[in-house]
Amino acid sequence: MAMVNKFFEQDLQVINVGLPSFAESINETGGKAIHLEWAPPAHGDRAAGFALAQIVNSQVVDEANQVAYERFLSARPILKGVGQALTSIPGMGERMLLHAGPPIAWESMCGPMQGAMIGAMVYEGWASTAEEARTQAANGKIAFEPCHHHSAVGPMAGAISPSMPVWIVENPEHGNQSFSSMNEGLGKALRFGANEPAVIERLRWMQSALGPAMDAAVKALGGIDLKPIIAQALHMGDECHNRNVAATSILFKRLAPALVKAGWPLDESASALDFIAGNDHFFLNISMAACKAMLDAGHGVEGSSLVTAMARNGVEFGVRMSGTGDAWFTAPAPMVEGLFFAGYSAADAALDLGDSAITETAGIGGFAMGAAPAIVQFVGGTPQDAIGFTREMAHITLGLNNNFTLPSLNFAGSPAGIDARKVVDTGICPVINTGIAHKEPGIGQVGAGITRAPLACFAQAVTSLSEKLGS
Amino acid sequence: MAMVNKFFEQDLQVINVGLPSFAESINETGGKAIHLEWAPPAHGDRAAGFALAQIVNSQVVDEANQVAYERFLSARPILKGVGQALTSIPGMGERMLLHAGPPIAWESMCGPMQGAMIGAMVYEGWASTAEEARTQAANGKIAFEPCHHHSAVGPMAGAISPSMPVWIVENPEHGNQSFSSMNEGLGKALRFGANEPAVIERLRWMQSALGPAMDAAVKALGGIDLKPIIAQALHMGDECHNRNVAATSILFKRLAPALVKAGWPLDESASALDFIAGNDHFFLNISMAACKAMLDAGHGVEGSSLVTAMARNGVEFGVRMSGTGDAWFTAPAPMVEGLFFAGYSAADAALDLGDSAITETAGIGGFAMGAAPAIVQFVGGTPQDAIGFTREMAHITLGLNNNFTLPSLNFAGSPAGIDARKVVDTGICPVINTGIAHKEPGIGQVGAGITRAPLACFAQAVTSLSEKLGS
Repeated sequence: MAMVNKFFEQDLQVINVGLPSFAESINETGGKAIHLEWAPPAHGDRAAGFALAQIVNSQVVDEANQVAYERFLSARPILKGVGQALTSIPGMGERMLLHAGPPIAWESMCGPMQGAMIGAMVYEGWASTAEEARTQAANGKIAFEPCHHHSAVGPMAGAISPSMPVWIVENPEHGNQSFSSMNEGLGKALRFGANEPAVIERLRWMQSALGPAMDAAVKALGGIDLKPIIAQALHMGDECHNRNVAATSILFKRLAPALVKAGWPLDESASALDFIAGNDHFFLNISMAACKAMLDAGHGVEGSSLVTAMARNGVEFGVRMSGTGDAWFTAPAPMVEGLFFAGYSAADAALDLGDSAITETAGIGGFAMGAAPAIVQFVGGTPQDAIGFTREMAHITLGLNNNFTLPSLNFAGSPAGIDARKVVDTGICPVINTGIAHKEPGIGQVGAGITRAPLACFAQAVTSLSEKLGS
Repeated sequence: MAMVNKFFEQDLQVINVGLPSFAESINETGGKAIHLEWAPPAHGDRAAGFALAQIVNSQVVDEANQVAYERFLSARPILKGVGQALTSIPGMGERMLLHAGPPIAWESMCGPMQGAMIGAMVYEGWASTAEEARTQAANGKIAFEPCHHHSAVGPMAGAISPSMPVWIVENPEHGNQSFSSMNEGLGKALRFGANEPAVIERLRWMQSALGPAMDAAVKALGGIDLKPIIAQALHMGDECHNRNVAATSILFKRLAPALVKAGWPLDESASALDFIAGNDHFFLNISMAACKAMLDAGHGVEGSSLVTAMARNGVEFGVRMSGTGDAWFTAPAPMVEGLFFAGYSAADAALDLGDSAITETAGIGGFAMGAAPAIVQFVGGTPQDAIGFTREMAHITLGLNNNFTLPSLNFAGSPAGIDARKVVDTGICPVINTGIAHKEPGIGQVGAGITRAPLACFAQAVTSLSEKLGS
């Protein structure tokens, strides 16, 4: 009884584990409670936890990660120009369509991806109607392969067809290349599954006018070093996934004088410049190709648990890891929580879609949201949440990338280089800023928001690496 | 004794007034002390405090401020084009040079201002050497007048000579116009007192090539609404005084296609676009003209204590107030604390200089620093300081301007519309981001930093208004 009295004489000081609401009620009634963020590894998945235990303190993995991370950090993506997909992308076929995310068959594709593939077939002249296109696709006339199997990335549906112009990025430090489609702007766009005549018309203009103009401008500049542009954009409120207004402006300031000096025909220059000036997401696809080039430099290091790709096909979320080669570790694609355009709601939304999570894999996008407080007007939440996401991601990365500093975090580097072990250990899943497509083909973008990569992908990756190292 | 014991049984809880260090030592030893920011009105100046007491709760002043503030908020500055100073600026004379800040005679001007005036005379062809120019100036051959007496503003020395191209801004809501010189870039520039041949050469190119090109582009666009550009730039890390990289980029995206579509000669387009793309401060002078147009709309309201201009000539800091007409309230110009370019130090610095504090007067610049965390790399301090300045300024303004929202402050409006009464009452002096010129003529910029408007200007202004209303 004396002990109990003594206990109540003191201020109550509590460390809470479990439901945060217990700590909140203590604080609300004047007590002091600190909530300890802790969950059992792998959210309690016993097998994954066991696999993790084998490698969580492995010096082999630590050393492999250091090699892979150093390669990632030292990569120097340079925009070299624009080429035709068929002749630029290694292994691209004449009747091949590339898509976002891990491999998926035509009949399993989500609505917006089928919509984009139909649009690409019409654009290529392989079909004149959606019905014809569907028949061809169903009859195995088209080879569908992931962009990621061809050093390429594409946002949302990620459709790349043989005639399309693609950005070409080179990393001279390690000799690898990457590719991405060109950005079509917001709203009705192929990447969101729209395929009406105006969408096809714009793709043809991109092929005949925009692509050649950009190739001329970039070549006149002798290539464009992309990391400094991303670094500057992070100081101007972009996170270079879902907010690219600053990066697009910086790029525009380079391209416009180059185009004028190249003596490009005035009307084509004007239409190209108008298009870029009116599309604040123009840099997104270049940002993605830069991230792909950086991460591919760190791929293929035996024993490394560095995540080198996160990509979604709208049905499955897939993860690749440096030390596990070409394997994909997949789980069902999650929903995206966010803000919807007028007239749409969560009921219209496709699941998480696109290769654009390559930006988060490289430590920008959702990982650098603290640099982009204004993005919450597009994806929801508060500026404080944005900073919180960045701080949280530092728990699952191999380090902070001092090439990309974040002013609002006192110029700390962006948390970069996801260690699959840390994801499984902490249960903290990578946060992703993303667009939201309508779930039906042919409609387009309906909103933007935030989602998380599924833990199961990382649990599989860790298990696979653990088995590999154990054998 | 019992009371004393009881006192020491409790946790010590202190409210501290006066030196903050007393509170700090209590907190450091484990006690709890809150520091109350309070100082006697007018920092203890008895006469100013008495004058303030007459009008601090005056309904007449409150109502006048509401009128003036509403006019300020509803102003809509539109960039209309570029014209020649002599034919565009009302009252500009053929042998007249405009300068920054309150009125000042040639012999009293600081080094960089004399350097700029000499450069302007050489540029105009009135003198072929600095010595000739000095002689003319000393012999009263040149009329020196403040930019502000001609609806104009100029950064640093603020030199505007008759042949120079000037930006023309109109506020159709209230029918007023404003003007500013065009920005020459950093380093060796007339506005920082440099006047070597390369500086004069660039001014001639601005007159013959850049000015006409900008006029053509702006006119082709039918004018450019400036508040939306400032608002967007504040979401991209600018504060539109000492950081204008985003605003310049946004403007560039408008100007470049317009210039191309206007069919402007390719070589002149290319040199103009290269110049703008290479000068992240290009928008500064336009920002200043926009602020001047907004504040002039609120000027001249009888009884109003709204500050409508803060400007420095490098010797004196001057303030104008809506309800006190053309009067200037002046005090010695302060030092600027900041970061110096390699090879320079505070010993080289001129005192606070330029009309650019018109931006702070309008609630951007130092008042919106919270929007621009990256600026601390240019002016010193931490991102947290930047947010602190913005919060502090809200204590001396008539309100928050919802036209200009600040993402890092959860999209609160920028504190805008300085009430001279509140400055005197709180002793909180307006914070100003600014460039630092070398104190000798002919050298140029040596750094950038932060300073405060002197309290004495506001004390005089309040005293004048108090006398006016009392009579």
